[in-house]
Amino acid sequence: MAMAEVTVVPMGTGSPSLSKYVAEVLKLVKESGIKYQLTPMGTILEGDLDEIFSLVRLMHEVPFSNEGIKRVVTTLKIDDRRDKPLTMESKVKAVTSKMGE
Amino acid sequence: MAMAEVTVVPMGTGSPSLSKYVAEVLKLVKESGIKYQLTPMGTILEGDLDEIFSLVRLMHEVPFSNEGIKRVVTTLKIDDRRDKPLTMESKVKAVTSKMGE
Amino acid sequence: MAMAEVTVVPMGTGSPSLSKYVAEVLKLVKESGIKYQLTPMGTILEGDLDEIFSLVRLMHEVPFSNEGIKRVVTTLKIDDRRDKPLTMESKVKAVTSKMGE
Amino acid sequence: MAMAEVTVVPMGTGSPSLSKYVAEVLKLVKESGIKYQLTPMGTILEGDLDEIFSLVRLMHEVPFSNEGIKRVVTTLKIDDRRDKPLTMESKVKAVTSKMGE
Repeated sequence: MAMAEVTVVPMGTGSPSLSKYVAEVLKLVKESGIKYQLTPMGTILEGDLDEIFSLVRLMHEVPFSNEGIKRVVTTLKIDDRRDKPLTMESKVKAVTSKMGE
Repeated sequence: MAMAEVTVVPMGTGSPSLSKYVAEVLKLVKESGIKYQLTPMGTILEGDLDEIFSLVRLMHEVPFSNEGIKRVVTTLKIDDRRDKPLTMESKVKAVTSKMGE
Repeated sequence: MAMAEVTVVPMGTGSPSLSKYVAEVLKLVKESGIKYQLTPMGTILEGDLDEIFSLVRLMHEVPFSNEGIKRVVTTLKIDDRRDKPLTMESKVKAVTSKMGE
Repeated sequence: MAMAEVTVVPMGTGSPSLSKYVAEVLKLVKESGIKYQLTPMGTILEGDLDEIFSLVRLMHEVPFSNEGIKRVVTTLKIDDRRDKPLTMESKVKAVTSKMGE
């Protein structure tokens, strides 16, 4: 099980607003059944690393397919720790508990 | 007002666990009074862009100062939109409302 | 054909030096036959997007397999433009020619 | 002395081509006198960390000022090693020499 943060950003849309493109991509994430969290700066995925790679590959296609976009910049950051389980909750709690919260 | 995502990662610590370093950096963020959100993959800041730059510069020093670390990799991603206010809540809501949630 | 920038960073190595880990990963890239460029901040790949995904998946495993590392943070940034060919040379030249160089 | 990789990306331009925006930003880098390298995926800076922060702050303003852009996403990745000098040449050479090149 690994964790990843993903952004899929269409270029040259003609408008500063990107939320409709993000919503289309996120629908795909939701349908995949993978555990995810939408943050103000990206989408965090938690699951099997091969499934994450497959899903990100599909996410990247969404603006091309649905919206006629000609250029997409996708970022993927993987945090993969294999000596102990890494979950969204445990990662945040490990920090906040050390802050005395 | 801008939004930013920051990670401050010490290299060569000798242990796969990074949470104590993240906690030290986050204490500084908390003391600064800036609006922030800790996610499983980074820290999101919302505020004046010059204040964000100043704070990130200080965050980057924490592992060197407190922990004797010799190498730090810091990432900063700024999302700055000037035609309308950008807040953590409004960004997430713009997406989820378009998903029908 | 797409372009991508990749970094594969082992956590908790005990030393600030990372070049031996990067060299192991880059050997794999070289053997793959994909077009690449090593920069001071990452490795740039140019080629078929599915091949890039497959290669990055393998690159991410290298520090776990060869070096006994327990945590790896891998970043991938894809720039995929489909209205015209995108090559490493053409991207740089498009900028420098507009600077009058 | 630290190293950094920067991208300044205007959103919603109406065209998939971004090179004219990158060229405007790079003119500022060139005028600053800081050591830099343009790669197909970003701009690498080498120098004093405070100077890098100041320059990146200015780079981020360019698309707003020169081009009437309403939203800019800027990424900054700092690699700061303090036990030995870190230069663009030495970083690449440390890797290639370990590959036997």
